[in-house]
Amino acid sequence: MSGARLLARLDDLAQVGPIEGGGSCRLALTDADRDGRDLVITWMRDLGLEVVIDSVGNVVGTWNVGSGSAVMTGSHIDTVRTGGRYDGNLGVLAGIEVIETLMQAGLTPPRPLAVAFFTNEEGARFQPDMLGSLVFVGGMTVEEALDARAIDGPRLGDELRRIGYAGAHPCPSPSPHAFVELHIEQGPRLETDDIRFGSVTGVQGISWQEVTITGQSNHAGTTPMSLRHDPALVSARIVVFLRDLASRYGGDQVCTVGKIDLVPNLVNVVPRSATLTLDVRNTDESILRRAEAEIATFLDQVAGDEGVTIETRRLARFEPVEFDGRVVDLIEDAISHRGHSNMRLPSGAGHDAQMLARVCPTAMIFTQSHLGISHNPAEFTDPDDLVEGTDILLEVMWRLAHTDFDAAPGGNS
Amino acid sequence: MSGARLLARLDDLAQVGPIEGGGSCRLALTDADRDGRDLVITWMRDLGLEVVIDSVGNVVGTWNVGSGSAVMTGSHIDTVRTGGRYDGNLGVLAGIEVIETLMQAGLTPPRPLAVAFFTNEEGARFQPDMLGSLVFVGGMTVEEALDARAIDGPRLGDELRRIGYAGAHPCPSPSPHAFVELHIEQGPRLETDDIRFGSVTGVQGISWQEVTITGQSNHAGTTPMSLRHDPALVSARIVVFLRDLASRYGGDQVCTVGKIDLVPNLVNVVPRSATLTLDVRNTDESILRRAEAEIATFLDQVAGDEGVTIETRRLARFEPVEFDGRVVDLIEDAISHRGHSNMRLPSGAGHDAQMLARVCPTAMIFTQSHLGISHNPAEFTDPDDLVEGTDILLEVMWRLAHTDFDAAPGGNS
Repeated sequence: MSGARLLARLDDLAQVGPIEGGGSCRLALTDADRDGRDLVITWMRDLGLEVVIDSVGNVVGTWNVGSGSAVMTGSHIDTVRTGGRYDGNLGVLAGIEVIETLMQAGLTPPRPLAVAFFTNEEGARFQPDMLGSLVFVGGMTVEEALDARAIDGPRLGDELRRIGYAGAHPCPSPSPHAFVELHIEQGPRLETDDIRFGSVTGVQGISWQEVTITGQSNHAGTTPMSLRHDPALVSARIVVFLRDLASRYGGDQVCTVGKIDLVPNLVNVVPRSATLTLDVRNTDESILRRAEAEIATFLDQVAGDEGVTIETRRLARFEPVEFDGRVVDLIEDAISHRGHSNMRLPSGAGHDAQMLARVCPTAMIFTQSHLGISHNPAEFTDPDDLVEGTDILLEVMWRLAHTDFDAAPGGNS
Repeated sequence: MSGARLLARLDDLAQVGPIEGGGSCRLALTDADRDGRDLVITWMRDLGLEVVIDSVGNVVGTWNVGSGSAVMTGSHIDTVRTGGRYDGNLGVLAGIEVIETLMQAGLTPPRPLAVAFFTNEEGARFQPDMLGSLVFVGGMTVEEALDARAIDGPRLGDELRRIGYAGAHPCPSPSPHAFVELHIEQGPRLETDDIRFGSVTGVQGISWQEVTITGQSNHAGTTPMSLRHDPALVSARIVVFLRDLASRYGGDQVCTVGKIDLVPNLVNVVPRSATLTLDVRNTDESILRRAEAEIATFLDQVAGDEGVTIETRRLARFEPVEFDGRVVDLIEDAISHRGHSNMRLPSGAGHDAQMLARVCPTAMIFTQSHLGISHNPAEFTDPDDLVEGTDILLEVMWRLAHTDFDAAPGGNS
């Protein structure tokens, strides 16, 4: 395969909606997203792929149509406002490179190979994130998706029409034979352990809640400690409790408090209220539920101790997704076969693959992400890893095209 | 004395710079402050007081000039942006009421009685707070004070001239014979203990610092707990440590974290930095220093534990002020003599009296503040307490006018 061609396409796409630092801003269904779509479709058409656009703007380019259900790869090309060069883009352009390489080698697989990019994966302009792949697999109706409102106002359906990507192909789409997505890790685990590639076992379940603590605002100098009902203290106890919970649970458990807002937020005033967010993730739904229950108990207790009231609001809740163990094994084998170190690990972030996992055998390949930095122009993966990851994707797709999945999908634990 | 007259004047003054909820906004040296000054001076002149305006705009009205150094009372009439009706105003208008009552009773004290209001006590428009009384006692030069810049731009000296309050009287002023200030507590202690009046033993020392914690921003889903350097967690540990420190020290020790700012402050991002403020107060300088040392040690330790860097910046530092024990005793005696319950307590907030304490025997009288609410239109003290507090002020001033202070000021511990 041609590493130079892959890297050049990554460069070309990064220059659509360029931002300072070498990243891109292509919020879903903006003019920049349309320009990115047009460019990628040009490359698909140059290869003679059959390009299909569906009713929520997902784009699928297929080679060797008519020989059964396709082995599909792909990802997304929309970005967050401060997007890097690799998140999403790599998975799409690697897919094109895989097909072009096989074509040029004169190797025709026994099934169609397809490469897709899905609408609004990031969720930075429309909610929910992963909207396109969700509709693709029938998890959301087209009508509901078209009614989604952008943060800047317009309906998704109107924006699709405006940029010329309201396609005719119906959703849900027929299920692929299998799906595999190449993506940067967006976390530091591979790099930290000096492991070159990851075979991704699934996606962590996510529990987001907002906690609002209401106490009593008081003068910091004149109010004795015994008379305080201090939301800042309660929020601090919650942050410490979450860290302790993550330590006790171990494994893949992560807990984060990334947002705290005190009111009025002044040096000499005991706050009237504190609002904080709890982000709790685990690959095991039963453990995630146990964590949520422990947190609820703790909130009651700490509210009583300090004499404050606590209200919680659910912001998001996704059950963990388990990828197909047969595909995970196949990826692990391909990584080893090519002489690389491998780590089986769950994804901490959401990906289109988790939607495809509902309808066909699915898994993902991770490359390292330098320092785990993502959603930032400083996002970086070594070019050798980008190219070698694409070679692994080729081998996996080739082998998937030769694999029959007749039994029910297997777990991977 | 006339309670009705006192309450009517409080009403009239509250209506200068009125804000929703019945409070006032008279930021120092604004047009509203000028209107308030004009009104209060009218009342002073109606009583035939000699009104002197000094070079930083402090105003002193004196009765019975020429009979030695004055027994002085007073406070301030500038407010914060969301000022209540009593903070400062009570001490000034009660002083006028004391003089008018004695005049009408035909009782002439053996010394002059004076009532003052000092410029920019609140510090809401110019720094430092208590600027006027500080210059009055020689703690800051007039030149330096006139060069202070308002938060909205202008020089203090220019604003003084603009509103016609750049007086001719030099600073520092000759020392009064004694100073006593009537003020609302601005805290909940009297009300909580059902004690009607307080004899104030001094003002707590204040240590303010800003703590900036720099860690590593990471994705909340993809970053294992073991690889985190989380400023939000460190800020939480500091908040909990401060509460524990206050509990261990007991007594008058108070510690507050009223302000926390995380960056970028997003639900799914381990913050890059946290900035929080520490407000630590005690009436004993040696204990305050011990607290500061313990905090510094803890910051080093917690930074090392989590792998973050911590920088601190001093925002303010005032040593505790101890009022004159003879004046505190005299106030306590007057409160008891009038049949009321009394509490000796320190002030948690700063007051002009703490500046006067540098040059003459000084103490304060506190009335209850409902729920401790202050700097808010909801600030409330029972009218009976306002009137009775003014009667106590009268008795204290009368007795101070008959007291010779020949020895060095005594402590009150």
